[in-house]
Amino acid sequence: MAAEGATDVVALARALIRCRSVTPADDGALEVCAAALASAGFKIERPVFSEPGYPDIPNLYARLGTAGPCLVFAGHTDVVPPGDEAAWRHDPFGAVIDEGWLYGRGAVDMKGGVAAALAASLAFVAERGAGFGGSIAFLLTGDEEGPAVNGTVKLLDWAASRGERFDACVLGEPTNPAVLGEMAKIGRRGSLTGRITVRGRQGHVAYPHLAANPIPILARIIEALSDTPLDEGTAHFDRSNLEWTTVDTGNGATNVVPGEVRAVFNIRFNDLWTPDSLAAAIRSRVATAAGRAEVDLRFDPTNSVAFLTEPSPFVELVAEAVEEVCGQRPALSTTGGTSDARFIKNHCPVVEFGLVGQTMHAVDERVSLDDLTTLAAVYRAILGRMFPPR
Amino acid sequence: MAAEGATDVVALARALIRCRSVTPADDGALEVCAAALASAGFKIERPVFSEPGYPDIPNLYARLGTAGPCLVFAGHTDVVPPGDEAAWRHDPFGAVIDEGWLYGRGAVDMKGGVAAALAASLAFVAERGAGFGGSIAFLLTGDEEGPAVNGTVKLLDWAASRGERFDACVLGEPTNPAVLGEMAKIGRRGSLTGRITVRGRQGHVAYPHLAANPIPILARIIEALSDTPLDEGTAHFDRSNLEWTTVDTGNGATNVVPGEVRAVFNIRFNDLWTPDSLAAAIRSRVATAAGRAEVDLRFDPTNSVAFLTEPSPFVELVAEAVEEVCGQRPALSTTGGTSDARFIKNHCPVVEFGLVGQTMHAVDERVSLDDLTTLAAVYRAILGRMFPPR
Repeated sequence: MAAEGATDVVALARALIRCRSVTPADDGALEVCAAALASAGFKIERPVFSEPGYPDIPNLYARLGTAGPCLVFAGHTDVVPPGDEAAWRHDPFGAVIDEGWLYGRGAVDMKGGVAAALAASLAFVAERGAGFGGSIAFLLTGDEEGPAVNGTVKLLDWAASRGERFDACVLGEPTNPAVLGEMAKIGRRGSLTGRITVRGRQGHVAYPHLAANPIPILARIIEALSDTPLDEGTAHFDRSNLEWTTVDTGNGATNVVPGEVRAVFNIRFNDLWTPDSLAAAIRSRVATAAGRAEVDLRFDPTNSVAFLTEPSPFVELVAEAVEEVCGQRPALSTTGGTSDARFIKNHCPVVEFGLVGQTMHAVDERVSLDDLTTLAAVYRAILGRMFPPR
Repeated sequence: MAAEGATDVVALARALIRCRSVTPADDGALEVCAAALASAGFKIERPVFSEPGYPDIPNLYARLGTAGPCLVFAGHTDVVPPGDEAAWRHDPFGAVIDEGWLYGRGAVDMKGGVAAALAASLAFVAERGAGFGGSIAFLLTGDEEGPAVNGTVKLLDWAASRGERFDACVLGEPTNPAVLGEMAKIGRRGSLTGRITVRGRQGHVAYPHLAANPIPILARIIEALSDTPLDEGTAHFDRSNLEWTTVDTGNGATNVVPGEVRAVFNIRFNDLWTPDSLAAAIRSRVATAAGRAEVDLRFDPTNSVAFLTEPSPFVELVAEAVEEVCGQRPALSTTGGTSDARFIKNHCPVVEFGLVGQTMHAVDERVSLDDLTTLAAVYRAILGRMFPPR
């Protein structure tokens, strides 16, 4: 349900939340954006991307101006499912305002962020007109919370193939742990998932010499990968971190030595590693711990490499805009989960700054109206510094 | 289907195998025994035992003579299920003889052993008459492969309450690894099962400081219980041995640190331990390895304590009888799984000697006709040494 005509940040956020755009559904969310941007003179394109085995996904590309530099706001209008809707204080798609908070799935991740970028751009253009000395673009997708194959990664390639060039990008994912202004993100760790199967020989517990138990071997492998840090971190990154996510045998018989045990781990790694160099280091540790035991180790395919937007005038510009509006200089962090910034960084410098993430993906996801207004002001300040009056 | 009138070992074994006596079914198996024993003058009683929540089970007690000493043959006529009957070379309840082998579920565990004890006793009584200077008894149950609550344990109490006293017992479970004569069993290790739950704090792998992964803690516990032997064994027992039987988490999400992980282990322990002393030692190791982590450790109830029939004239008598018939002195072992000997040892010295166990519980369970005849001869020799001609 697109609400036509909204231009202020709260109205835009409410219009977006009212669309039930659980990936891969759109339910009018991109039309809310298109209508707002068109009203300010943006040229809108709505490519739909397809991939066998995945649902088709609508995307939106908008641009105002042809001159450089071009600042692009990136984001997504799809959301994760609400879970048990009855557990919510308010309808997760109702966009209810209650005591200064706007409730709804996507309020912070990231319909609120998209609304702030739209409102800031509309206000900027209303004030400065089209001749502000550059271009503003929007890259919006409906496939960030899902498989992310028909979303930002294809939209960027699509734009590049048409000759679109971007000089800097602001991605409005939630970045602040508790208070708006405390953290921007200038990179992300990479992610690598490994799957281990240790094979022994099944047998009766009373005849251990006829069996070979794989579980103590896996225990040694777990310790070998967990007890010694992978690195000590770098200037802008925490230590790489490995977490075991599951260990499973599925043997219900207390008198049977199992024939195999399986385990899965995930590593969030910093810029000291590529997925290949990290996989090689893990293989080496596993081989040492496993000795002569039969161990199968596979890594899931990944395009999630660590990246860093090196400190630069653009990073400094964003930090100063945040400080100007929020009263504190944001930490420039590389922590947290993955985002579409991992695709954008191949095209231009990208900085993430958005809302407070505490309720994202949770029941009663909500954003304070103050934060919404403040975030729009931060984006407005970024535009002002990017395109200073001549 | 009882086959009346069989007295030789092969005919008795075939008659027993033809009964589909998968626990708790009897299908005439005890009647085969009763008929054979009655023909030799044994007094037969057929108590049925009950327990809420378990099926009623028929049992058989037979005795010839009232004088001491009393030698008792113990055994069971129930069998484990045949599994996929189509996978068998011959009908598992057909008692087919093929190239010198008798096929069928229970051929070695332990209808063959019961048939050998019956045939030996009948032959002994036929030769020596009733005045052989002692008594022979049979304790046969239909609940050894099942829960074992309405079987030997109750039959022993029932007999004791009626004033029956036994001086020595031969239990005809399969004891020989490969060749008849190589091994008798004079005790068994105890069995103790423990269940561990390690609790951490669930969270997102990208925010490890907000989560606490229980899997590396379990790995330390596994190593603490597996890497250092519980003991060095004793004169008649191997080292106590711990095997992990399962480790399970059940977390399918590669970006989630699981909140808990569960594991089960089983210990076969020697006569240095009671279940209580062993549980205390395990608790101590687990506490050290777990540190401040939240670990729940529970032990399954057990009545499976380690026991030993100390070397004695009776043990020596059995060993000499085996050597006389088989041509080799049997090793006196305490290895392997549990058996009803754990109950019998509370009433009189018990030695286990039976068939070659290789095919027990397997598809195509079978006994060589030579082994059947030889085992009957061993039991006949035991009777001869127990009751020497005056």
